[in-house]
Amino acid sequence: MKKRFIADIKTGDRVNDIFVLSEKILSQKRDGNNFLNVVLSDKTGTLKGVMWDHVDQTAAGVTSGDFVHVNGGVSEYRGTLQVVIKKMEPCSPDRVDPSDFLPQTSRDIEGMFDRLVKITDSITTDHLKALIDAFLNDTEFVNKFKTAPAAKKMHHAYIGGLLEHTLSMVSLADKISGHYSGIDRDLLLTGTILHDVGKIDELEYQFNIDYSDKGRLLNHIVIGIKMVDDKLSGIEHFPEDQMLLLKHLMVSHHGTREFGSPEPPKTIEAVLLNYIDEIDSKVNAIRDFIASEDPDETWTSYHRLLERHFYKGKKNA
Amino acid sequence: MKKRFIADIKTGDRVNDIFVLSEKILSQKRDGNNFLNVVLSDKTGTLKGVMWDHVDQTAAGVTSGDFVHVNGGVSEYRGTLQVVIKKMEPCSPDRVDPSDFLPQTSRDIEGMFDRLVKITDSITTDHLKALIDAFLNDTEFVNKFKTAPAAKKMHHAYIGGLLEHTLSMVSLADKISGHYSGIDRDLLLTGTILHDVGKIDELEYQFNIDYSDKGRLLNHIVIGIKMVDDKLSGIEHFPEDQMLLLKHLMVSHHGTREFGSPEPPKTIEAVLLNYIDEIDSKVNAIRDFIASEDPDETWTSYHRLLERHFYKGKKNA
Amino acid sequence: MKKRFIADIKTGDRVNDIFVLSEKILSQKRDGNNFLNVVLSDKTGTLKGVMWDHVDQTAAGVTSGDFVHVNGGVSEYRGTLQVVIKKMEPCSPDRVDPSDFLPQTSRDIEGMFDRLVKITDSITTDHLKALIDAFLNDTEFVNKFKTAPAAKKMHHAYIGGLLEHTLSMVSLADKISGHYSGIDRDLLLTGTILHDVGKIDELEYQFNIDYSDKGRLLNHIVIGIKMVDDKLSGIEHFPEDQMLLLKHLMVSHHGTREFGSPEPPKTIEAVLLNYIDEIDSKVNAIRDFIASEDPDETWTSYHRLLERHFYKGKKNA
Amino acid sequence: MKKRFIADIKTGDRVNDIFVLSEKILSQKRDGNNFLNVVLSDKTGTLKGVMWDHVDQTAAGVTSGDFVHVNGGVSEYRGTLQVVIKKMEPCSPDRVDPSDFLPQTSRDIEGMFDRLVKITDSITTDHLKALIDAFLNDTEFVNKFKTAPAAKKMHHAYIGGLLEHTLSMVSLADKISGHYSGIDRDLLLTGTILHDVGKIDELEYQFNIDYSDKGRLLNHIVIGIKMVDDKLSGIEHFPEDQMLLLKHLMVSHHGTREFGSPEPPKTIEAVLLNYIDEIDSKVNAIRDFIASEDPDETWTSYHRLLERHFYKGKKNA
Amino acid sequence: MKKRFIADIKTGDRVNDIFVLSEKILSQKRDGNNFLNVVLSDKTGTLKGVMWDHVDQTAAGVTSGDFVHVNGGVSEYRGTLQVVIKKMEPCSPDRVDPSDFLPQTSRDIEGMFDRLVKITDSITTDHLKALIDAFLNDTEFVNKFKTAPAAKKMHHAYIGGLLEHTLSMVSLADKISGHYSGIDRDLLLTGTILHDVGKIDELEYQFNIDYSDKGRLLNHIVIGIKMVDDKLSGIEHFPEDQMLLLKHLMVSHHGTREFGSPEPPKTIEAVLLNYIDEIDSKVNAIRDFIASEDPDETWTSYHRLLERHFYKGKKNA
Amino acid sequence: MKKRFIADIKTGDRVNDIFVLSEKILSQKRDGNNFLNVVLSDKTGTLKGVMWDHVDQTAAGVTSGDFVHVNGGVSEYRGTLQVVIKKMEPCSPDRVDPSDFLPQTSRDIEGMFDRLVKITDSITTDHLKALIDAFLNDTEFVNKFKTAPAAKKMHHAYIGGLLEHTLSMVSLADKISGHYSGIDRDLLLTGTILHDVGKIDELEYQFNIDYSDKGRLLNHIVIGIKMVDDKLSGIEHFPEDQMLLLKHLMVSHHGTREFGSPEPPKTIEAVLLNYIDEIDSKVNAIRDFIASEDPDETWTSYHRLLERHFYKGKKNA
Repeated sequence: MKKRFIADIKTGDRVNDIFVLSEKILSQKRDGNNFLNVVLSDKTGTLKGVMWDHVDQTAAGVTSGDFVHVNGGVSEYRGTLQVVIKKMEPCSPDRVDPSDFLPQTSRDIEGMFDRLVKITDSITTDHLKALIDAFLNDTEFVNKFKTAPAAKKMHHAYIGGLLEHTLSMVSLADKISGHYSGIDRDLLLTGTILHDVGKIDELEYQFNIDYSDKGRLLNHIVIGIKMVDDKLSGIEHFPEDQMLLLKHLMVSHHGTREFGSPEPPKTIEAVLLNYIDEIDSKVNAIRDFIASEDPDETWTSYHRLLERHFYKGKKNA
Repeated sequence: MKKRFIADIKTGDRVNDIFVLSEKILSQKRDGNNFLNVVLSDKTGTLKGVMWDHVDQTAAGVTSGDFVHVNGGVSEYRGTLQVVIKKMEPCSPDRVDPSDFLPQTSRDIEGMFDRLVKITDSITTDHLKALIDAFLNDTEFVNKFKTAPAAKKMHHAYIGGLLEHTLSMVSLADKISGHYSGIDRDLLLTGTILHDVGKIDELEYQFNIDYSDKGRLLNHIVIGIKMVDDKLSGIEHFPEDQMLLLKHLMVSHHGTREFGSPEPPKTIEAVLLNYIDEIDSKVNAIRDFIASEDPDETWTSYHRLLERHFYKGKKNA
Repeated sequence: MKKRFIADIKTGDRVNDIFVLSEKILSQKRDGNNFLNVVLSDKTGTLKGVMWDHVDQTAAGVTSGDFVHVNGGVSEYRGTLQVVIKKMEPCSPDRVDPSDFLPQTSRDIEGMFDRLVKITDSITTDHLKALIDAFLNDTEFVNKFKTAPAAKKMHHAYIGGLLEHTLSMVSLADKISGHYSGIDRDLLLTGTILHDVGKIDELEYQFNIDYSDKGRLLNHIVIGIKMVDDKLSGIEHFPEDQMLLLKHLMVSHHGTREFGSPEPPKTIEAVLLNYIDEIDSKVNAIRDFIASEDPDETWTSYHRLLERHFYKGKKNA
Repeated sequence: MKKRFIADIKTGDRVNDIFVLSEKILSQKRDGNNFLNVVLSDKTGTLKGVMWDHVDQTAAGVTSGDFVHVNGGVSEYRGTLQVVIKKMEPCSPDRVDPSDFLPQTSRDIEGMFDRLVKITDSITTDHLKALIDAFLNDTEFVNKFKTAPAAKKMHHAYIGGLLEHTLSMVSLADKISGHYSGIDRDLLLTGTILHDVGKIDELEYQFNIDYSDKGRLLNHIVIGIKMVDDKLSGIEHFPEDQMLLLKHLMVSHHGTREFGSPEPPKTIEAVLLNYIDEIDSKVNAIRDFIASEDPDETWTSYHRLLERHFYKGKKNA
Repeated sequence: MKKRFIADIKTGDRVNDIFVLSEKILSQKRDGNNFLNVVLSDKTGTLKGVMWDHVDQTAAGVTSGDFVHVNGGVSEYRGTLQVVIKKMEPCSPDRVDPSDFLPQTSRDIEGMFDRLVKITDSITTDHLKALIDAFLNDTEFVNKFKTAPAAKKMHHAYIGGLLEHTLSMVSLADKISGHYSGIDRDLLLTGTILHDVGKIDELEYQFNIDYSDKGRLLNHIVIGIKMVDDKLSGIEHFPEDQMLLLKHLMVSHHGTREFGSPEPPKTIEAVLLNYIDEIDSKVNAIRDFIASEDPDETWTSYHRLLERHFYKGKKNA
Repeated sequence: MKKRFIADIKTGDRVNDIFVLSEKILSQKRDGNNFLNVVLSDKTGTLKGVMWDHVDQTAAGVTSGDFVHVNGGVSEYRGTLQVVIKKMEPCSPDRVDPSDFLPQTSRDIEGMFDRLVKITDSITTDHLKALIDAFLNDTEFVNKFKTAPAAKKMHHAYIGGLLEHTLSMVSLADKISGHYSGIDRDLLLTGTILHDVGKIDELEYQFNIDYSDKGRLLNHIVIGIKMVDDKLSGIEHFPEDQMLLLKHLMVSHHGTREFGSPEPPKTIEAVLLNYIDEIDSKVNAIRDFIASEDPDETWTSYHRLLERHFYKGKKNA
């Protein structure tokens, strides 16, 4: 069990606790011996560390991403806190409460999942319903889908974020598909549910959120298409035309090539899916950003990716 | 009354009919005398014309944008039909049925306007309601607002298009403001209604749709802000803060500087308004484009502005 | 059998011949009846056509992409040749020599294929060799791979072009992988052979070269990945790591997101594959362009996509 | 009265002095109590501060932008100086010499204003002269116009900067309008004088230079147009055409949409105004940058916004 | 001597006159024989031509850029006038009045040159004056410099345009160098005079204006630097530092890499030169464009390169 | 002789050693006296320094780029190590081993040069061989060419890097020129050897690698063209056409204007040279980056210029 969080550590403290080993860099000293620089993390932040002795044995036993039990003293080096590590050894995930290491959605995961299942009941096109059911009846998939974040940073970057994002988008898709005539609602809803499923393998999110090798090499769009293909292989008579249109929703959901979609949206449903994704990710990103800033100030600080300050309103307005 | 439309004219025809004089270019022949090139239009298309005699008197009496009564014969010049004009004189708008010259929304304008008014009744913030009422009680504004197109080309480019676009967006804004907590619904709806009001003066749409001098020099965002300021001057105690936020919705509704907004959206409401505008204009543009193409083909031709072909589906699919 | 090619047709001719129906657009006349605009093509160019009578029966019987037997007379309309079609009916592909309709590589297809097979014999990594063999032993695949063009326009846009492009790239990859130390030659060669396999389904090239529905909706990268996955499912113990790296070569071979790769190259082999593809497609595109221009002039005309004139050299230099 | 400037403070000092409270961020400790991070500033720089006790009362009494009297001790935290604040309370602006907090033009403000007034005497177009006079006779406007900076950073970012920039541009406009025939000199000069008037409200510059809420939400172009409209409402018979052209100068003076102008320059005068603004702001920005760098070196350091080093010349050259 | 200009030629005319052979494209007919497509030009425009017989002998005797004597009849092909050429043979430039083929500045070339020389007299830095004199005393250079256009299209694209553009810029540079303190006036004026000298070889402008081989392969910046180096080799003790700064003005005068400058401006003088060039080329381009349009209309047509309509003003305003 | 390297210095150390004075910034204290901030460097890194006394005499005696002998004590300021300098005086380069200050190629410089000379023996076009010989027989050139780096950062940024890069490219050019028919191998090889010769003067690399004044003002393309022109002036009958094509290879080798080439590649040889340069610089840059990172990790850290992580492979894969 974790005793103290990184946010509470200060110069002079003794550290004897569990962390995620987020980065590990082995370097050579001029005398030919190695030393070790590490970054440790928990859900409250990150902490640098350095280790001078017993380095080779220690380094060989741990990989970045592991839980480690660290023993050492905290000093300040070049203006930053740093643990000078005496001992660091791997720590079995069994001895750890994952919620100490990862932020989580503030909503009820099971409740969200039930609402999603309920909405899928309104899909009346047989082959689309069959495909959705193939996913929802796959326990391994469902377990990952319930816990996966929607991103490493930026929006819904917490356990349960993918489900929260997907559910919100499905609900928006439902509303908007009723607004315009001639929308294939079942196709749009199915595409919305599946558009980001590749993220359950693009990201790793057991102890900290990061891209997986697969994610960095293939991208969640390509991963997701393969997952759909695997399910499709178990469904008879899925119309070729519908298969193409559904995959097109996934392929094009980032809107432009610049944002990673090999093809831009070429159907009204694909155009809508892209905007629904944009709306839900931006609203979540901006609201989380505003929530993390000083409540008394009128403006947020500068948002580097969205390239602006956001207006929060005057305190007594 | 118009007798024949441009789409029906062919080489060898005699023309004796009313058109809009869309372009007028006076040039000098080598012998020192002038000749006149014109473009004539009605709601079915455009027709080139040339005039060799009595040019100076004729040119002095008409300006581009006028209705003209044209007399002449149709031949072919450099591969295009061309009227060799014998006589061209201005024609009073009274003698003309404007619907012969401009495309119009397929929806009922009065019905749409009533629905818009009804939605505004649900705005309960006093000063916002007062502002909306100031516009809706201004007969001159309402008359223009009911007839204005939303654009010269691209989307809702027809009489009644601005109202149709605004109503659709308000309805979407209503749905989406209920989806997320903490949205200032009254502000979003007010901003949605007013975001494009400047278009009633940015465009001219009596006989053909084109930009006005004011529109080309100032842009509808700047024109619209002035219209709101004029109405605000008649409303007491409109909160300064609300005035800024409302104008910000107008200023930022194109989303980025590249698309003509001096500032990007800096509130959630402004972010939503930009996406709602994007969705409604793109859906309308794509559907109109698809509707104008061969119903038997699977794909549209290439859309130059959106830079892609759109999928229409197989005929018997 | 085709009697005369489009390049030889002139005003006043009677036409009674076979063409590909490249475009078909059904429109309504003001009197409520339909008329038909078409574009006909063979390997020498395209020809516009219009049909006024018996339109509905005719239109219902043919789709764009079909061979059609056309009967009519050639006139000039708005500066372009145009067949006024009396009769147009579908024509069975059996009665047609495809080489009348599609340009073809100037090289020997079987010879090129043999050379490619020979190079694959030098791949000594078992699982990669097994994958290549799975493709090369698939007769249906091989037949398409031998005939597919590498693009609709721009480079290697002719029957056999994909094979010619792939063989040239493999030979370059062989040379370059020997130049730098530490390159995984087998992986690079395998990735080079497979990088564009999706093009056999992205394009249609029976009678004219165009994108297929699948190609426009999914893109050849996504299609090719699926083809590799299908072959991989038949190979036991293909290392996961190698599978990711191989697919990464395919995913990233366009070099940047702007050019359609969901991820940029992240291994030296992927970086090299992207440049080898660039070199071979640009050299082919420029040489074909130069070859199509006046041999006596020093410069080509302006190349619209590459945005420059190319220097051909002085005639007697 | 200020006793010591931030540039002179070092670790171990006691602080008992007046600063501008540039930023104020209230955060929660793990024990549920709040603490306060602040940034203090004067004209010599900025200083971080932290406060642990009596935080809620203190925070409630001050807002960012206020003058504050701070009592505390200076230590070093994570490599930066930091005041640990014992007491911080608002300080009336009356007790403060603003020149301790804001940089100021090195030129004589009254002298510059007189020169500007003198130049306006040469404007002979009645309605333009009337408009300029309406501004120059508005004491509240003139007071702000004399003190406003032209920007937060980059160029003329000091008290009096807007006047200095405007005067320099007017003088350039005078010279250039004589160089080309057919320039409407009076219009160009009037537009030059008014192009940035919105900055007097876009920025706040009482104690430190920052954007106002109005500035961030509306942009100085939109603010300036409103100021001109207000003055125009008091001038009879201002020609509509001239009003559009004058506002167009303001709307388009940033040159392109990317740089914040809703419309690009569409008259020669507008094209010239944009270049005159570019020249004067760049020359000022580069010269101030060069002046702030080591006089002995040949090159400046890298200018982040202009993306280059500037050449200052060899010392003894 | 030329008898009739292209602007006066119509269908049915016999042509027996001199033209510039602007383009020549030799193609093969299906029967294996060649035919010839050409573009003919004079200062009033261009005219297409085709030749069917005696093609090989004819083609061998003429090159694009030559004067040709053409004999043939004018018909219309695909909507454009076309000469069916019976005979075409080279025509000695001696028999031609060049002013029939190239547009020319409306100003007095000798007068402009005298004014330029006079301004150079005010340059008091010895080595800079020596360099300018080296150019102005080089008769071959001066002859080309007096006739060269400043561009193929866009601005000052006529005989004498380079001199007119340079003189106007020098005069502007003179004015602006007095406006700011600390400008090296002699350096700026020298750089302004020399910045485009490479254009006398980048372009060919004997009979029509086009890029030379040298111009297309090397660019006028690189050509001009070589010309300056050649003159510098004859001047003793030209300070190294001044040589670099002068060449830097030439290298950077396009302002950014995107516009063809290998380095951006890194001195105040270089920044000013870039803006002075921008102002003078844009003002000339826009005024020429406005002058070429219908005087009665309020707006110009759309300017493709500058991407906007320009406002010309109401006729009676 | 250097005693200790920067990488080995820590807080509390006495420093009495030789460094390169990389930056020198003289600033004024509030009391009117000057102080000095410096950056010191050797091949292991950089170290900040400050000097409070005897500043004016010291500053006058040294310039950035000099070797200096520094005497002082190391402390920590704002989180970074800093030497408080007691004494700093210039140090003659004679007393210094340059290899202590600059990284160097790991290959044998003389061996590489011999291989390059050998390849040039295969160039059989007389005038090209003569030009290459003119360079290779110029001892001053050869000495610089053997030591110059190919860049300040990014790729081959070490002594001997230019030669290593050039040799590798020449070998690639040799291979690729044999792959495609119709390549002018001698021209391509000559252009490859000369494309970057300007870098011997664009950079300074005696004690640390930085841009020279000439390099920053003129760019290595312009410098290199001048070097070729100087050699060409000594070669009789060098064909004009070949001279243009050779210089074009140099002018265009960055591929696009955005990357600093005044003209893009307009011959096949120029297109190839650009890609060969791209391949060799990217492969070197990525391999050096990978080599500098932790060998145990699967991915590199983020590469800021190439904007991605690179895959290094699993340790035991």
